[in-house]
Amino acid sequence: MKTLRVSLGERSYPIYIGSNLIDEPEFFSRHILSSQVMVVSNETVAPLYLARVLRSLEGRQVATVILPDGEAHKSMASAMAVFDELLARKFSRNATLVALGGGVVGDLAGFAAACYQRGVPFMQIPTTLLAQVDSSVGGKTAVNHPLGKNMIGAFYQPQCVLADTAVLNTLADRELSAGLAEVVKYGLIRDPGFFAWLEENIEALLTRDQAALSYAIERSCANKAEVVAADERETGERATLNLGHTFGHAIETGLGYGACLHGEAVAIGMCQAADLSRRLGWLSDGDVERVVRILRRARLPVVPPAELDAERFLELMAVDKKNVDGKLRLILLDKIGRATLPLGVDVVALKATLDEYGRD
Amino acid sequence: MKTLRVSLGERSYPIYIGSNLIDEPEFFSRHILSSQVMVVSNETVAPLYLARVLRSLEGRQVATVILPDGEAHKSMASAMAVFDELLARKFSRNATLVALGGGVVGDLAGFAAACYQRGVPFMQIPTTLLAQVDSSVGGKTAVNHPLGKNMIGAFYQPQCVLADTAVLNTLADRELSAGLAEVVKYGLIRDPGFFAWLEENIEALLTRDQAALSYAIERSCANKAEVVAADERETGERATLNLGHTFGHAIETGLGYGACLHGEAVAIGMCQAADLSRRLGWLSDGDVERVVRILRRARLPVVPPAELDAERFLELMAVDKKNVDGKLRLILLDKIGRATLPLGVDVVALKATLDEYGRD
Repeated sequence: MKTLRVSLGERSYPIYIGSNLIDEPEFFSRHILSSQVMVVSNETVAPLYLARVLRSLEGRQVATVILPDGEAHKSMASAMAVFDELLARKFSRNATLVALGGGVVGDLAGFAAACYQRGVPFMQIPTTLLAQVDSSVGGKTAVNHPLGKNMIGAFYQPQCVLADTAVLNTLADRELSAGLAEVVKYGLIRDPGFFAWLEENIEALLTRDQAALSYAIERSCANKAEVVAADERETGERATLNLGHTFGHAIETGLGYGACLHGEAVAIGMCQAADLSRRLGWLSDGDVERVVRILRRARLPVVPPAELDAERFLELMAVDKKNVDGKLRLILLDKIGRATLPLGVDVVALKATLDEYGRD
Repeated sequence: MKTLRVSLGERSYPIYIGSNLIDEPEFFSRHILSSQVMVVSNETVAPLYLARVLRSLEGRQVATVILPDGEAHKSMASAMAVFDELLARKFSRNATLVALGGGVVGDLAGFAAACYQRGVPFMQIPTTLLAQVDSSVGGKTAVNHPLGKNMIGAFYQPQCVLADTAVLNTLADRELSAGLAEVVKYGLIRDPGFFAWLEENIEALLTRDQAALSYAIERSCANKAEVVAADERETGERATLNLGHTFGHAIETGLGYGACLHGEAVAIGMCQAADLSRRLGWLSDGDVERVVRILRRARLPVVPPAELDAERFLELMAVDKKNVDGKLRLILLDKIGRATLPLGVDVVALKATLDEYGRD
């Protein structure tokens, strides 16, 4: 078992990484100080792992909210379902919420925890690779709005994150690949050594070699924890974690939530960001090819959907949260292993990327 | 013009108190750094003051959301209406929200600001006495849930508060009295000298003597600012600001939102808290009489609604946010000018208060 720490002063918390951690009541009793606990999960994860989590919570007053699976349910309606249940049970502001699921469950339960009675403690048990390496760490919580992803949310840190590597054994191949998109991202934005390691080990990860997965999760979380500690509320460096995400969100919104996985959209977006970085003279053709190749090897899509043309992309990207005062901002790469956030975006080059990259 | 400061480190902000401040663009340009501004107001306040505020915002890209008046609209549906408009306008995370109205508008717009893109700047222009002395200061934002008031919210501080005393001239008498309930509260919980001043000056306040109002607002805000600075997230002293509020929220919820004003419910609740404090041996009969008398002189109700019996009160009080792990917590008085937060509540005495106070 490995413990990392996210350093945020009085909001600091540990990330535990290891096998079968959900069976150890010790992790729960260490971080849940109240008797009232609500576990939020979904219809895919609950049948697999809820009983084991409830066993670890024995002796407490436990309620559960089981949501349908999928990004479509990361909505205010789902958050309201959680509030309804908390209030029906008369749960106080000392109740603890536990998120048991992927990024949708974690973001939603975290947002509900941030808002219920103006904030109650919560604990993350991410059950997908994506959630383990990305969404469960760093305190970004949100629900979607029909006009944009993650548009309603809060920065709100959990008491701890329990990344149980054994639960990844039941993860669908497609979900595993989607998680690898974010793993590759850490290499691209700030860890060239890790990127090189991934180029050597991507197949081991796909075959779920436990040692390889553990190392990838640890290194991803360590990178994320460093970035978040330096910039909790995303006023600077933290924005680099959004490499590929402005393009990716446009794809997700344009196709309708649920048509493609977040990691898949980000994979395409990172390719577009790499292509745009090349047009601006920062990456070579060979660099772009390395980016596209590792993502393709991770069994991720690397070309944008034909139905979204450049014009539609620009429209969808106009509501991105990273925009400043109406101006589009994009995270790009000035080399493999280093992200950059140019103050303005060259619209001609951007249009060329949207028109040409992956459009043959 | 008087400036107070709420000291909260990097979240510190000024409260400006004075006449016709909304006509001075200087206050807006000092605190609004973005070109995108959304003013949230209601159908009562907007016809009176919106045009003047818009004039002070000239040169910016301004949107407005005008809600129906009343506590019933402090709902997630209203918050969603604000999000809808922000997104329809493609407002970025640098947009500033301006709350122009009473406590409902301030709490709602503040909550929307806290959640939109995980937090955008906002500015409070409270237009009721209640909002000027209480809800606009301290960063508590929320919407109501059918099962309880303020159950969904955030601690989120504004950039500044503009308390324009001239706008109180259009305030209904009943609203003015409701504001005085919170003014009296500051005297009761921590400022016996101010309580004595109020006993001398309550009629001057009711006739809207500007100097008296100004002094009462300043002293109320100064008290609130001190409490909030010492305990932003209500882990201790801040809870004393809720004197009468647990009873009051039960009355508001029990009668249905809008049947009585918040300040009216709090006035009754403070009388009940005083009565309970007497039963516990802390206040004399004469002290309770002083509390009841000043509130009655302020033209506030002082007896609980006949339709809410003790049993219903206890049921409604069970979901109060101040409760800890399922146990009821009440703010009481150990003398006039000093609040106390007993760890447990003597249920027999509480039932006696609910059964007997004001029930003849």
